Amino acid sequence: MQTLELDLGKRSYPIYVGSGLLHENDLLAQHVAGFRVAIISNETVAPLYLKEVEQALSDFERISVVLPDGEKFKNLETLNKIFDTLLETRCDRQVTLIALGGGVIGDMTGFAAACYQRGVAYIQIPTTLLAQVDSSVGGKTGVNHALGKNMIGAFYQPKCVLIDTDTLKTLPDEELSAGLAEVIKYGLIRDIEFLRWLEQNMEKLLERDSDALAYAIERCCQNKAEIVAEDERETGQRALLNLGHTFGHAIETGSGYGNWLHGEAVAAGMAMAVDLSQRMAWLSDNDVGRVSEILKRARLPVCGPDTLSVDRYLELMAVDKKVIAGQLRLVLLHKLGNAFICESFDEDKLRQTLEKCRMANAHAASGANK
Amino acid sequence: MQTLELDLGKRSYPIYVGSGLLHENDLLAQHVAGFRVAIISNETVAPLYLKEVEQALSDFERISVVLPDGEKFKNLETLNKIFDTLLETRCDRQVTLIALGGGVIGDMTGFAAACYQRGVAYIQIPTTLLAQVDSSVGGKTGVNHALGKNMIGAFYQPKCVLIDTDTLKTLPDEELSAGLAEVIKYGLIRDIEFLRWLEQNMEKLLERDSDALAYAIERCCQNKAEIVAEDERETGQRALLNLGHTFGHAIETGSGYGNWLHGEAVAAGMAMAVDLSQRMAWLSDNDVGRVSEILKRARLPVCGPDTLSVDRYLELMAVDKKVIAGQLRLVLLHKLGNAFICESFDEDKLRQTLEKCRMANAHAASGANK
Repeated sequence: MQTLELDLGKRSYPIYVGSGLLHENDLLAQHVAGFRVAIISNETVAPLYLKEVEQALSDFERISVVLPDGEKFKNLETLNKIFDTLLETRCDRQVTLIALGGGVIGDMTGFAAACYQRGVAYIQIPTTLLAQVDSSVGGKTGVNHALGKNMIGAFYQPKCVLIDTDTLKTLPDEELSAGLAEVIKYGLIRDIEFLRWLEQNMEKLLERDSDALAYAIERCCQNKAEIVAEDERETGQRALLNLGHTFGHAIETGSGYGNWLHGEAVAAGMAMAVDLSQRMAWLSDNDVGRVSEILKRARLPVCGPDTLSVDRYLELMAVDKKVIAGQLRLVLLHKLGNAFICESFDEDKLRQTLEKCRMANAHAASGANK
Repeated sequence: MQTLELDLGKRSYPIYVGSGLLHENDLLAQHVAGFRVAIISNETVAPLYLKEVEQALSDFERISVVLPDGEKFKNLETLNKIFDTLLETRCDRQVTLIALGGGVIGDMTGFAAACYQRGVAYIQIPTTLLAQVDSSVGGKTGVNHALGKNMIGAFYQPKCVLIDTDTLKTLPDEELSAGLAEVIKYGLIRDIEFLRWLEQNMEKLLERDSDALAYAIERCCQNKAEIVAEDERETGQRALLNLGHTFGHAIETGSGYGNWLHGEAVAAGMAMAVDLSQRMAWLSDNDVGRVSEILKRARLPVCGPDTLSVDRYLELMAVDKKVIAGQLRLVLLHKLGNAFICESFDEDKLRQTLEKCRMANAHAASGANK
């Protein structure tokens, strides 16, 4: 087992990464605040792992909430179902919420913890690759609004993140690929050496080689922990973690939540950011090819849906959280492994990128393209 | 104009108290973060003061949201209406929300600010006595849940609190009385000298003597600012501000939100807390009479509704935010002006208090009793 630390002063917490951690009862128990836990999971993950987690927490009074599975349920209405159960079972401020599932469960559980009685403790047990390498670490919590993704939420840190790599054995292939999008992201924004490692080891990851997966997860969490420790509330460089996300959120919101996996939308979005960076003459054709290649090898799309017009993209992107004073800001690349926040891109070139990534999709034959 | 300071390090902010402050444009403008403001008000207050506030903020782009008036609309559904408008008008993270109204508007606006895009700035402009002396100061925000009052929320501080005492001229009599309940509370929990002042000046307050009102508001805000500065997240003495509130929230939730004004429920709840404190032999009969007298002079109830049974009270009180490990904790009085958090009261005596305060109500002839 590896233990990483997210250094946030009094709110610091450990990130445990290893095989079989769900059975290490003491690991989890030491982070439970009171004598009661409420395990929040979904209909897909609960049948697989809820019993194991309940056993690991057998010293505590346990309640569980099993929500429907999917991004389209990540809203205030579902959140209220968590509050219903917490209040019906008279959970007080000493309750510890446990998020058992992917990014949707983690984001909603964290936000429920932030709001319930104005704040209770929670623990992240991410069971998808995407949640393990990205969303479970760093305290971004929230739900979607019909008009924009993750528009309602809080920065609220967990007491620990427990990553049992064994849970990846039951992960569907497309979810593994979706997680790899966020893995590749770290290479593109700040860790070129890791990008090279990924180019050499992508097949191992797809074959679910446990050592390769553990190494990739640790390296991603290390990158994320460093960034969040420096900029918890995203006033600066934390925004770099949003490479591809402004495009990606537009795809997710515009296609109806749940039709694209978040990681798939981010992959297409990263391809768009790279395309625009090339049009701005920061990246070479060779760079663009390298990114496209690694995404395709991870079985990820490199284009958006052809159902969204360029104007619709721009409309959806205008509600992005990085917009300041009406000015869209995009995470772009100066070179591979070196991202920055760009306010002064050429809008015509942005339109060209959006147009191209629709056309490419319309003509695409590859099964990797949605 | 008086300026008080709530000292919370980087999150410190001023509380302005005075006559005609809504017309002091610079006072407000200096606390607006970006170039856009969203004024949140309700159908009662907007016709009276929205135009004035819009004029004071004429240098900014303004949008406004007018919500239905009343405690029964203080829920996630109404909150979502605020988000709808903010997203439809493409407000970004630089928007400053302005709460223009009483406690319900202040609590909801503050919570909307805490959650919108994971946190934007907000300003409190309380227009009821209750909001001016209590709820607008200290950053407690939130909404109700069908099963419990203020169960969903956040600690989130405003950029300033602007109290224009002129707004009290349009306040209905019963709302003035409701505010006086929280005013009297400060005397009971920690400021015996102020309680004496209130006993001498209650008629002036009821006649809306502007000097008396301004003095009372300043003194309450000073008390509140001192408490919150020491214990922002209510891990200790801030809970003393909840004198009468555990009983009061049970009355509010049990009678249906909006049927009792919050201040009225708190008044009845304080009378219950005082009754129980007397049964525990901490207060004398004379003390009980003094409290009952000042509440009645403020035209406030000293009993709960006879529609709630003792068991129903206990059931509703069991979801109070001060409950720890299933143990109810109540704010009681060692003597007048000296409150404490009590975990070891006699449950039989609590039942006697609840029974008596129902019976008293059932037999009450006074118009001051609900």
